[in-house]
Amino acid sequence: VSDEDLYVRTAIAAWKTTIARIDKMFARFTDDELQTEVAPQRNRVIYILGHLTAFHDRMFPLLGLGERLYPELDEVFISSPDRKHSEHSDPPSGAALRSAWNEVNITLQERFDSLSASEWLERHTQISIEDFDKDPLRNRLAVLINRTNHASYHAGQVRLIW
Amino acid sequence: VSDEDLYVRTAIAAWKTTIARIDKMFARFTDDELQTEVAPQRNRVIYILGHLTAFHDRMFPLLGLGERLYPELDEVFISSPDRKHSEHSDPPSGAALRSAWNEVNITLQERFDSLSASEWLERHTQISIEDFDKDPLRNRLAVLINRTNHASYHAGQVRLIW
Repeated sequence: VSDEDLYVRTAIAAWKTTIARIDKMFARFTDDELQTEVAPQRNRVIYILGHLTAFHDRMFPLLGLGERLYPELDEVFISSPDRKHSEHSDPPSGAALRSAWNEVNITLQERFDSLSASEWLERHTQISIEDFDKDPLRNRLAVLINRTNHASYHAGQVRLIW
Repeated sequence: VSDEDLYVRTAIAAWKTTIARIDKMFARFTDDELQTEVAPQRNRVIYILGHLTAFHDRMFPLLGLGERLYPELDEVFISSPDRKHSEHSDPPSGAALRSAWNEVNITLQERFDSLSASEWLERHTQISIEDFDKDPLRNRLAVLINRTNHASYHAGQVRLIW
């Protein structure tokens, strides 16, 4: 294993550990219990499940790794706060969200494994060539590490209601 | 800048961003408000401040970067849950904790900057040579990324009471 591979594998290992912990966390809740708020008047667990799924699904185009699997999640779980989405959108069930969450993460992992180490240092698709020249840290690896932290941030919230 | 440096700098940038966000978060609370629980019967903000300070202070010996600055924080903020520490230990004030938090993170950053890229791939001090041979991902970089996620996890909790 080259040193270059080790840097990237270390970051991917942190992603995997975080996803595995969150998988276990969501598994503790029945579909009914997913309706519980993490704190009074704060997001329900099901909202966080949908929000993380939508956020991770956005990583496909952001990292240049293909099309999204569930773009329809954004309206309910990113554009709108919990319980404030348009009446025209029909929020998915807990079971449907669990399935989407798993599929998104499994597919992402396959795509991650297809990248070489140096490809992780390439720019992500939301930054221009000019801006990337000025700040080469806005690369795919940064997206991976930041999304891992975003997931941990919400995991800390769900942990409050065990 | 070499590719090796870029991997490491990307991970350090995520650490810095996370610490800066948490700095701003704690700055929103008066010393009195630090006594607020993040959710009913959960940790107070001051406990999370002390807990993160102690956890980060432990990174000095864990990364082989020198002696701890505040080992006395462990009894109240790591070994004990919030408000359950021994009567013999005197918890520090909010002002003292804010100062310790800043000093620990500033000093850590200086030590981080003293390491070469390949030194981040060396084993941390809590893993044996034999175990590290089997799993080279248990390196300094893994500690950095995992501690960034640990900080994000608790940041998500404090965020609930703005």
